[in-house]
Amino acid sequence: MKYTIALLAGDGIGPEVVNQAVKALQAVGDTFGHEFEFEEAVVGAIAIDQTGDPLPEATLDVCKRSNAVLFGAIGDPKYDNNPDAKVRPEQGLLKLRKELGLFTNIRPVKAYETLLDKSPLKKDIIEGTDMVIYRELTGGIYFGEKKLSEDGTVASDLCEYSEAEIERIAHLAFKAARTRKKKVTLVDKANVLESSRLWRRVVTTIAKSYEDVALDFLFVDNAAMQMILNPSQFDVILTENMFGDIISDEGSVIGGSIGLLASASVGNDVAMFEPIHGSFPQGAGKDIANPIASVLSAAMLLAHLGLHEEAATVNKAVERAIEKQIVTSDLNKNSEYGTNSVGDYIANTIA
Amino acid sequence: MKYTIALLAGDGIGPEVVNQAVKALQAVGDTFGHEFEFEEAVVGAIAIDQTGDPLPEATLDVCKRSNAVLFGAIGDPKYDNNPDAKVRPEQGLLKLRKELGLFTNIRPVKAYETLLDKSPLKKDIIEGTDMVIYRELTGGIYFGEKKLSEDGTVASDLCEYSEAEIERIAHLAFKAARTRKKKVTLVDKANVLESSRLWRRVVTTIAKSYEDVALDFLFVDNAAMQMILNPSQFDVILTENMFGDIISDEGSVIGGSIGLLASASVGNDVAMFEPIHGSFPQGAGKDIANPIASVLSAAMLLAHLGLHEEAATVNKAVERAIEKQIVTSDLNKNSEYGTNSVGDYIANTIA
Ligand SMILES: CC(C)[C@H](C(=O)O)[C@@H](O)C(=O)O
Ligand SMILES: CC(C)[C@H](C(=O)O)[C@@H](O)C(=O)O
Repeated sequence: MKYTIALLAGDGIGPEVVNQAVKALQAVGDTFGHEFEFEEAVVGAIAIDQTGDPLPEATLDVCKRSNAVLFGAIGDPKYDNNPDAKVRPEQGLLKLRKELGLFTNIRPVKAYETLLDKSPLKKDIIEGTDMVIYRELTGGIYFGEKKLSEDGTVASDLCEYSEAEIERIAHLAFKAARTRKKKVTLVDKANVLESSRLWRRVVTTIAKSYEDVALDFLFVDNAAMQMILNPSQFDVILTENMFGDIISDEGSVIGGSIGLLASASVGNDVAMFEPIHGSFPQGAGKDIANPIASVLSAAMLLAHLGLHEEAATVNKAVERAIEKQIVTSDLNKNSEYGTNSVGDYIANTIA
Repeated sequence: MKYTIALLAGDGIGPEVVNQAVKALQAVGDTFGHEFEFEEAVVGAIAIDQTGDPLPEATLDVCKRSNAVLFGAIGDPKYDNNPDAKVRPEQGLLKLRKELGLFTNIRPVKAYETLLDKSPLKKDIIEGTDMVIYRELTGGIYFGEKKLSEDGTVASDLCEYSEAEIERIAHLAFKAARTRKKKVTLVDKANVLESSRLWRRVVTTIAKSYEDVALDFLFVDNAAMQMILNPSQFDVILTENMFGDIISDEGSVIGGSIGLLASASVGNDVAMFEPIHGSFPQGAGKDIANPIASVLSAAMLLAHLGLHEEAATVNKAVERAIEKQIVTSDLNKNSEYGTNSVGDYIANTIA
């Protein structure tokens, strides 16, 4: 089969880690007889620098005519500390999510036995953790109306949700729970927010069509505590955009390395796969970035295309690299391996 | 001197723990020759049950004519799981904050040497942590306009901030940093939210009048990670209402026991002191609730009234109780001490 993959490497370490994922996919192609055609396109700060637009039309077109998108990372400090910047890299990512209809971000958080030592949490707390976070990705306060008063003294953001927006992601979360530990935890702030109360009502109704799945509720402040106190209690966490951003990033570090976590953003049609980590500009060009999250994103991409055996092969190659400690220095202080050599090892193991 | 203290014990374990704080204050009064006059008033679920209103006028009056408010906890599961309830205990607390002008919530997070073992974090990570969180308490999405469409299918909450709201708490945070490690970290989501960009602009300007204090910025998702990865990097965290709710609750568990953390809510006039923990309804009436957070709230109250020696005496009595392991079972599994006996020990130690 032939597949077209859009490569949106983005900023900072994005290009380096996406390169390793491409090597892995090429090895898969050679081994299993598939043809992957890669189309590169710019997004984020690099796109602003080149075109003035964080998501040029051409990039969107490339994504729309591809079978899936492999995303690196975006963001640059020169925009972060400038509240007056008119164009920002993040707008590119937000628009991409919206335009491709990627309304659900899926982030697995799993404690790898071999990495328990690297977790900031004590072993007995992190052990057995295996959850997946379903974060709504195209609604809420990220996309609500933004206002700044004429005189610049009052600013606001609107958090709005409709029943339909909640329903579609809720169904995905319940379906996922069915294949797992059969529990959905809705994270919200229903004791204060009207939008959260809508989430509670809609999700409670939908739960009735999934009688084999248990539903419980957690206020977001309590969820932030439970994630540290007892992360293994969770199976599927379902939540709105902003809470999902915070809780899933918190979840991403408890396992021991954010350099290992991949995520999928799915929706109507084309899906996108990306590491959890950011663009880490300080690390760019130094061959020190951990490529595993990007490689695992490629594995999620394969699974999404129905290539399950291929995905499993990539996952196994990654596990082998970790076992043999052929990893970057974030996972092993004394390691001599860099981004490229880890990528090569994984690709060779696949082939 | 004579002081009037409003006692708003609230729901669940609130009354039990506030009782122990009262014992401590009485011991302080006897020892140092002060007179504390306590006026009780209802708030939260108990106030709804008795009067239909989570914050009756009478309660507000009691607070307004007192020198300070000692608050217990509010909340009841019968409201939490009912998104259609018209009146909720939390409204009482929110209205109280607003009416008393308590625009800043101050939460110290400190790793007690004797309790490092109880932290979910590894010792080398939690050690040395000593931060204080300044959370804006009367603005943002908690208090912004809430809407539910006629047909109930669309809900929204508005997050709005004005320059003035940001300035007043920012000054308090910078002043606090001056007496500490001279660093303020603003937590926001300025790469996405207009209101966060206003925070960045205003706080950056104010920082110029505090040249001896360093200012840095952290996106809230990153802050949720840093709180676990490297909590000792923080001195003063300054943030808006909702982010403060999440981040400070996350911070509250890293130290090992939420049963030890007190907070102050300050603003224009009367200040309020309360434990971080909630109403823990399952524990009510069982003499198992840890009273220390409430007792430490009383110590913060004393300091606020200018009674620093008195406050120090209470703090020392609490430390003694912890050292001698005269603590409830959340701190020592095999403990035979209950809420009351711990409270008695602390009061006797003060006297
Ligand atoms: C870059 C930023 C807009 C983005 C977000 O908050 O959604 C990122 O933090 C993420 O979680 O993918
Ligand atoms: C009870 C609730 C409204 C409150 C809040 O979120 O402010 C509580 O969680 C707190 O942090 O004091």
